[in-house]
Amino acid sequence: MSVQMETRAHDGGVQAVYAALAGRFGNRASRGADILNQHAHTLSVTPSQPPDLVVWPLNSAEVQEIVRLCAAHRVPVIPFGTGTSLEGHVNAPMGGVCIDLSKMNQIEAVHAEDLDCVVQPGVTRKALNTHLRDVGLFFPIDPGADASLGGMVSTRASGTNAVRYGTMRDNVISLEAVMPNGEIIRTGNRARKSSAGYDLARLLIGAEGTLGIVTKIVLKLQGIPEAIAGGICPFPSVRAACDATIATIQSGLPVARIELLDALQVKACNAYSKLDMPETPMLFLEFHGSEASVAEQATRFGEIAAEFGAGKFEWATRPEDRSKLWQARHDVYWATRAMAVGLESISTDVCVPISRLADCVEETQKDIAATGLFAPIVGHVGDGNFHLGLMFDPKLPGEIAKIDAFLGRLVQRALDMEGTCTGEHGIGQGKVKYMKLEHSPATLNVMRAIKASLDPLGIMNPGKMLPQG
Amino acid sequence: MSVQMETRAHDGGVQAVYAALAGRFGNRASRGADILNQHAHTLSVTPSQPPDLVVWPLNSAEVQEIVRLCAAHRVPVIPFGTGTSLEGHVNAPMGGVCIDLSKMNQIEAVHAEDLDCVVQPGVTRKALNTHLRDVGLFFPIDPGADASLGGMVSTRASGTNAVRYGTMRDNVISLEAVMPNGEIIRTGNRARKSSAGYDLARLLIGAEGTLGIVTKIVLKLQGIPEAIAGGICPFPSVRAACDATIATIQSGLPVARIELLDALQVKACNAYSKLDMPETPMLFLEFHGSEASVAEQATRFGEIAAEFGAGKFEWATRPEDRSKLWQARHDVYWATRAMAVGLESISTDVCVPISRLADCVEETQKDIAATGLFAPIVGHVGDGNFHLGLMFDPKLPGEIAKIDAFLGRLVQRALDMEGTCTGEHGIGQGKVKYMKLEHSPATLNVMRAIKASLDPLGIMNPGKMLPQG
Repeated sequence: MSVQMETRAHDGGVQAVYAALAGRFGNRASRGADILNQHAHTLSVTPSQPPDLVVWPLNSAEVQEIVRLCAAHRVPVIPFGTGTSLEGHVNAPMGGVCIDLSKMNQIEAVHAEDLDCVVQPGVTRKALNTHLRDVGLFFPIDPGADASLGGMVSTRASGTNAVRYGTMRDNVISLEAVMPNGEIIRTGNRARKSSAGYDLARLLIGAEGTLGIVTKIVLKLQGIPEAIAGGICPFPSVRAACDATIATIQSGLPVARIELLDALQVKACNAYSKLDMPETPMLFLEFHGSEASVAEQATRFGEIAAEFGAGKFEWATRPEDRSKLWQARHDVYWATRAMAVGLESISTDVCVPISRLADCVEETQKDIAATGLFAPIVGHVGDGNFHLGLMFDPKLPGEIAKIDAFLGRLVQRALDMEGTCTGEHGIGQGKVKYMKLEHSPATLNVMRAIKASLDPLGIMNPGKMLPQG
Repeated sequence: MSVQMETRAHDGGVQAVYAALAGRFGNRASRGADILNQHAHTLSVTPSQPPDLVVWPLNSAEVQEIVRLCAAHRVPVIPFGTGTSLEGHVNAPMGGVCIDLSKMNQIEAVHAEDLDCVVQPGVTRKALNTHLRDVGLFFPIDPGADASLGGMVSTRASGTNAVRYGTMRDNVISLEAVMPNGEIIRTGNRARKSSAGYDLARLLIGAEGTLGIVTKIVLKLQGIPEAIAGGICPFPSVRAACDATIATIQSGLPVARIELLDALQVKACNAYSKLDMPETPMLFLEFHGSEASVAEQATRFGEIAAEFGAGKFEWATRPEDRSKLWQARHDVYWATRAMAVGLESISTDVCVPISRLADCVEETQKDIAATGLFAPIVGHVGDGNFHLGLMFDPKLPGEIAKIDAFLGRLVQRALDMEGTCTGEHGIGQGKVKYMKLEHSPATLNVMRAIKASLDPLGIMNPGKMLPQG
């Protein structure tokens, strides 16, 4: 089908879909310009591409109704959670209907004995954790933003706790989804494991809404640890911090969080969060367990760190002390922006086997310096995953091209080290061009065959993830 | 395509394929009757259905060659590891070529710093662990048999350690596979997490060879714990043991193994393994960690168990004492057979949310008694997963029908409790009929669409997993 035909079908289709949705959903459907623009904000340099209209369903049946209508008119469908994804996942390059799931924010059940819960996709991770606090449980996955759980499913999100608790891939028991043909599927029940058929939950996790819309999620939960200890530890170099991390993981120490900040990031945090950390590479750590266990873990970590030339490991079990540190860690984005007022920012991530992490970070730091960029580094080093906060002035001539070339080198460096172009942000639009670097034509053809089999009309979040053949 | 046409194509095709393989692979291709029968042994009541020939490739390129040849002649392909699956996965109901992967048994790399390794699919779990011992690492997934890792991928296997370390789903980083069209794909590199595209590894894990043949596996490894403590604890009832298990998991105690044996199973073990355990429901436990941590865990478990009326929790850190207990646990299959000499056995499993486990086991015990069966129960209770070893005399009139009706009730009971018809054994041929009970027509249609898109000729392990439409 040519682009022109698609456009023709689509233009007429959008009018018909809007008429039907306005009649059916009233003020839960909108095509106000402000609303449309809000739903295409990409938090990145990718230009906004607003949808033609936005609709807010309340339940799975309404999502089904909308998808069926869009399928009948061959109009694109773009699922939307909180709009905090980082690679243009919510853009509408071919227009279409944005399905905003934020009103599907019910926590339908918490099964404390089973350590699971059933939520609608619009529930945010913080809302869930607030709800769970009284029953002594928590959901560990924490991307920077207060993202929706549906969005976190769709980008295969992770965060600082992944080293201990895994990513969204590991913490979803089953899903309900509306497929591109409007059929509602359940991928399974609430059993924590099953060998009954293809793992459709894992297929939808990380599919970025290109195979269907997640309408219900059964999540694994964790008991809130009896004790939590946190601390920070300065290192003479990124390599020393990475080597200490490898030794820590390999020793079987069940570290809950182990985060690297490079010297520049520490400097930014000191200024922004009014701290006085030594401006050298730093590990932020957290241990979960019994009182005795976290004390033992912290002591043992201190011993390991000392072998790699670390400064004093200062640890704290008092919640207020820990909170201050982790708030500073979570504020790195704002701390970085505050050091570069008036500049634009890009947040990107790659992930490599942990043995290559020091190489990858060091080479990237050299590249940053050689390219003349300002880009603090912060990493989920237990997973070999790190982030750059690239600050730049888009008005400077050649700046975008310079950044683009730098990002290409970053991805190639990670791939050369047997890593991936994204550990947790996803592909969206921003990294589509890297899919052909990471995956062979045969592998991409398998992905395309699956996409074509489930979404033959190509209406589900088009222009994302899969490169043209 | 009608069945008759398939059969015609196939009959001629097998001759052509055999001629080509015999010429190419010499004595690594065989159609000797004994060889064919060995490769269709199902360890179950499912009748054997031998393939037309068996071939032993040595590497991915040879697997590719065989699959291309079979595809050209539309001849079924049945992958074979150790033949220890329990639901007829290795049967060849439409004949075809059995690809025996046992000679692809190379451990290609161990990356100790990254806690991963790269193996061919014919490596068995015990061979891998023997190889890893010197570097202080282990691979935790332990189905009863010394299965091949390719087979464990394909059945989404787990075992006694899954409560702590997860299942095959959680412990595979990436895969290489030969797809039905003969293309070789890599699902990813060695990064521990990635958000770059559809999760093809998870799609192949548990696909039972119906979507492709796994030819290489990157596995996560674990450090051998500094200390291991194991123990057994008697309970007044299955319910008390289950409730103690729930409290243990919920308390965040990182138990590595927690296994339930019902009174009948304990009796069988006492007789077979020359032990003198009280013949009452029993939990077998294992804790991994530092010396201090396992001591604390064992003590805390003892306190929790006491609240549920348990007898004395006896624990041991001496390897020889632990080994004796776990050997008895691993020998339950033989212990059960020894109690019912001359009878046939079926091993089956279901899995339910842990809060329903006591209900499910108790109701099943009542059903066993009411049906007049002999069937000890053993369970991975931390996951809500339990097994029955059903012993019966197939020569008794009506016995097979009686067992079949019983198994149907067992599955329905698990599904009614939001569980699954199989936690870890898989579907194969034996549980195909339950797929329609567990999954809706819409869900099965998604599975069929994926199957049709990747294997349009239907040559990959036909007759397994997916029920007719």
